[in-house]
Order: sequence, then structure tokens, then C-alpha cells
Amino acid sequence: MEITKQQLKIEENYNKLDFTSIPQLKVIEMELLDAISDSRGTIREMCNHILKAGGKRIRPLLVVFSGLIFEQNLQKLIPTAVSSELIHMASLVHDDIVDVSIMRRNKPSINSVWGNNFAVLGGDYLFAKAFGILASQGLLKSMGFMVEAIESMCHGEIIQAEDKFNCECSIEKYYEKISCKTAIFLKCCCQAGASAVGASEKEVELIGEYGLNLGLAFQITDDILDLCGSSEIMGKPKSEDLKQGIISMPVIYLLKNRAHQSFIKSVIENKVFDEETILKVCSLLTKTGIMEKCYDTVKTHLEKAKRNLDALPESYHKEFLYRLADMVYTRIN
Amino acid sequence: MEITKQQLKIEENYNKLDFTSIPQLKVIEMELLDAISDSRGTIREMCNHILKAGGKRIRPLLVVFSGLIFEQNLQKLIPTAVSSELIHMASLVHDDIVDVSIMRRNKPSINSVWGNNFAVLGGDYLFAKAFGILASQGLLKSMGFMVEAIESMCHGEIIQAEDKFNCECSIEKYYEKISCKTAIFLKCCCQAGASAVGASEKEVELIGEYGLNLGLAFQITDDILDLCGSSEIMGKPKSEDLKQGIISMPVIYLLKNRAHQSFIKSVIENKVFDEETILKVCSLLTKTGIMEKCYDTVKTHLEKAKRNLDALPESYHKEFLYRLADMVYTRIN
Repeated sequence: MEITKQQLKIEENYNKLDFTSIPQLKVIEMELLDAISDSRGTIREMCNHILKAGGKRIRPLLVVFSGLIFEQNLQKLIPTAVSSELIHMASLVHDDIVDVSIMRRNKPSINSVWGNNFAVLGGDYLFAKAFGILASQGLLKSMGFMVEAIESMCHGEIIQAEDKFNCECSIEKYYEKISCKTAIFLKCCCQAGASAVGASEKEVELIGEYGLNLGLAFQITDDILDLCGSSEIMGKPKSEDLKQGIISMPVIYLLKNRAHQSFIKSVIENKVFDEETILKVCSLLTKTGIMEKCYDTVKTHLEKAKRNLDALPESYHKEFLYRLADMVYTRIN
Repeated sequence: MEITKQQLKIEENYNKLDFTSIPQLKVIEMELLDAISDSRGTIREMCNHILKAGGKRIRPLLVVFSGLIFEQNLQKLIPTAVSSELIHMASLVHDDIVDVSIMRRNKPSINSVWGNNFAVLGGDYLFAKAFGILASQGLLKSMGFMVEAIESMCHGEIIQAEDKFNCECSIEKYYEKISCKTAIFLKCCCQAGASAVGASEKEVELIGEYGLNLGLAFQITDDILDLCGSSEIMGKPKSEDLKQGIISMPVIYLLKNRAHQSFIKSVIENKVFDEETILKVCSLLTKTGIMEKCYDTVKTHLEKAKRNLDALPESYHKEFLYRLADMVYTRIN
């Protein structure tokens, strides 16, 4: 009975993509607390603030489940999982400086509470902590994957910043941006998990492709929801990205639509982001079939993601990753 | 003849604490260029800007010479040396955001050219690159030391920021700040170099104490020169730190001097930093013997530093580190 209740809870949280009730993730949560327990003063306050703000914990989830497919050894996966979330937290803290965001996960962002100066240092501390954990456990391969993830994120954020309000942004550039910003990190988490328990090179490659496609689907979904979702779901104001000049997939397609390109171009170039205009943009995206096309793209990536799992050993954890892909789709359906 | 000329050049550069003409450091310089060669776009531009701005390269110097005392194997030391400078560069880029500095090494700072947003990402990229190099070479011990250095620097910068314009700042707090900000990094460089070539635990500890005391002497000297040195030597405006509210050793002693404490307190609290006032502060520091006391403290740390070398194997490289300690002193004498 208790188990069923717990399963129901997990089921319900799946739909919100909140994985904190999964037993393995509860372990990670404790370890995250432990990781920052030796910090002091303001750094400690900042770390606690970030940790308590919660989050989906999708990166440690991917590390752990990608590893458990190949070996039932959670202990081996914990340091990499914890590091992946610390690096994610660090990048969020720094991204909020870059994007001048005042809210994060429905709470004030670190920069809005402590100022940009402290936020820079808080992020640096979390990066260092993550590498400290990996170094102390001798996890060189995980470290390589995490370095790749950070380097990609830096490039992705810069591409994003440089391409703000650029109505000529191509779909290729968009893919480069979301790969660097999001998908490569998820790929690296899957690869780090699998390689930490000794999966073969081919297996690491396959699980990596799963992570990459899941990440692309995830980011495109996020971009759709940001543009036309409700602010309660996202925990941030509607169309926040567009208001900041970030051109996402649906907007790129609308910019290529002959009938409406001059309208959307003038919206972006003149920064007309009142509620009425945003509603009109969303209605156009539906009417023109662009939203449908974006949903289909998400679906295609999720199918690609799942196909990469096919050749991997059968297990509960593989099934979970299949389900996870479906869950991403249910967010927009 | 050529050698003598080169030696003269090194000699001359010693006095400026510029070590780039030392053959081993030339190798490091090439390797630094190589390290950033796979970066792209704006990140590449920022990396090139930082690299070309130059610097003393004292951290790679300490890594290399601390290692060469124990084993003549430069190759083994290069990755750690390169990483130490990349981490130093990253921390400078982030510090300039924290301190709102517009100049660095007589050139515009990264934040002043590319803005805070890109500077955050440029620094993150350099941190990641540094750990990538260490991970690819399996240098776990070096990684541990570099993590310690970064965590300390974050704490040090936060202590500094929190204690700005605080006339109650104690000498203990000042030591905590400069240890965290500067000296622990130099300690870690020495330790990482020695441990990379297999020095014993005791030897690593001794060379670490050398680095720590050299670092303390170095920072106190820097603080003296910032307060009363000429702007040509430092490449930044005179008394820049005081103007920013950073209370250093000489100022702390002046704040404790009964005859002058009310004057200096009112200077700091009312932020009266015109040229005349600064000149008066400097003249008071000399008249009261405070500058002399600070010089003596520098001397004490340098003697402590040298004493730690005594038990280490005799070598040209150990002699060099002795000389290096003397060179720090000649900056203020």
C-alpha cells in the first residue's frame, strides 16, 4: 500500500518533471546538502538558497539511471550525479547575471538578493566544489564530460547573447545554441553515468545520443512553453525569452512565414511586448500550424532518443529513461 | 655571451617580477596559447585579450620551480603550470566584475570591453579549460590543490567585499583575507608542483609554507604599493584599493594610532580621496613608522618562506626560489 502511494506520488511528479521523490534522488539530495556543508558565511547562505529553491534534478537523474542500466551500483554514481547538479546550479547562478534575471524557480535569484558581485563568486565556488568532489574520487572521465558541458554552456550563452533581437537567426544557429546551452550537458550526464560504471564506448555513445536528443526536445519544449505557456507552470513571466530578444524555434518559423514575417519582425525590432501582442503571436503560431510543427520536432527528437536505448541492456532503469522521454512530451500535450 | 645577455635580461626582469624570459616560462607561454587554441568566436577573442595582456606568470613559475627541485622533468609539470595560470586569469576576469575595474595590466579589462555578461562566461570557460587539462592528464592531486585555491579565492573576495569601508577591520581579518585571496593560491601552486613529481608529504608541506609566506609578503607589498606607490609601477591608479574601501595593513595600523585615527576614519567614512588627502595619508604612514613596520612584516614572511626551503634538496631551482623571495622585498626597497 505504501509503495503504491509512493509510486502514485512519483507518477504525479513525473508530470511536473520533478524527480525528487525517487529514492535514488533522495540520496542525491542528502549528498548535495553534504557537499556544501563545509562552506562558510555568505557562500553558505547562497548555496543554501540555491539548494532550497529546488529544481527538477534531471541531470543527476540522468547520471544515475544511465549508470544503473549497466551496473546496480548507486554508490559509484553519486559523486558524478552530485557534481552535475552543482555545475548546473553554478551555471544558473551565472546565467541569471548574464540574463539580468531577478527570479529563479519562483524565488529571487542569487544576483537579485546578493548582487552580481557575490553571484559571480557563488557560482565559481559551486564549480570548484563540483570538481573537488570528482577529483577526490578520482573520477577523471566524469571530469572530462563535465568540462565539455561547461565549455559548451559558455559558448551557448554567448551565441544566445550575440543573437538577441536578430531576426535573421537561422534554425541551424538555433540548434547550435540549444545544443550548447542545454542538450550537450544532458548528453554528458548520460555519458558520465554510463562510463563511471564501465559501459563500453559504443554504449556510452548511444546513451549520449539519448541524452542529446532528450535535451533538444526538452529545450524546444521549454521554448514553446516560455512563449505560449502560462506563467504558473514555468515560474517566470510569460514570453520572458522573447521580451529579452531570445529568438526560439516557433519565432524563427514565424519569421519565415511570408504572410506574417513583417508583423513579427516589427514586434521584435520595436520591442512591442504588451499582452495583446503576445497573445496575437501565440494565436498566429497556432493558426499557421507552426506550433504543430514544433511539437512534431519535439516528438522526432524523443523518438530518436528512445531508439538509441534499444540496443542497451534491458532493465527497469532503461524503461524509466523511455518513460522520461514520453514525460517530456506530455508537458506540451 | 648570449647566455650572459639572457641572464642580464632575466636579472632585469626579476626586478619587475616579470618571469616570461625564463626558458621554462617560455614553454608555458606556448602551452597557454595552445590551451585556448580550440576556443571559438567571442570566447577566443576574450582569451587572446587576456593572454596578450601579459602578467608575471608567478603561479606557473612556482609550480615549475617547486617541482624541478625534486625531479628534472618539466614535461610532468607543464599541465599543472598552465592550469594554474588559466585559473588565475579566470579569477582576474571575475574579480574585475566584482571590483568594477575597468583596467587590468594597463589594458582595458574584459568586463569593460565585452561587458559583465560575457566576462562571467569568459571566466567560466577558462576555469573549465584548466580542469580539462588536468583531467586529460590524470592529475588528480593538482586538481585538488587548484580546487582549494579557487574555493579560498571566492571566500577571500567575499570577505573583502563585506569588509569594505569597515574601520573596525582587524589585522587578523586582514590576514584571513589576504591568505584566502592570494597566499593560499601560491601555496597550492608550490604544493601541486612538488606533488606532481612525487615529493614526500613533508616536502610538499614545506614548499607549501614557502608559497604561503611568499604570498603573504607579496600581497602586503602589493597593498603598500597600491596605497603609496606610483601608478606607473602598478599599472593602475594610486590608492585605488583605498578608494574602493579596501582596508589594508598600513591603514589598519593607522586606524589604531591614537593621534591619527580620527583623521583616517573620517577620510574613509566620508570617502575623501582627493590627491592631497592621499598624500597626507602616505606621509603619516611614513612619519608614524607604520610603513617601516609593514616592511618589517614583509621581511619576516620572506624569511619564514626561505627557512622552509632549507630542508629541501639543494638545487639551482631552490636557489631560484630563495632569490625570488628577495626579489619581492626589492619591490618596496
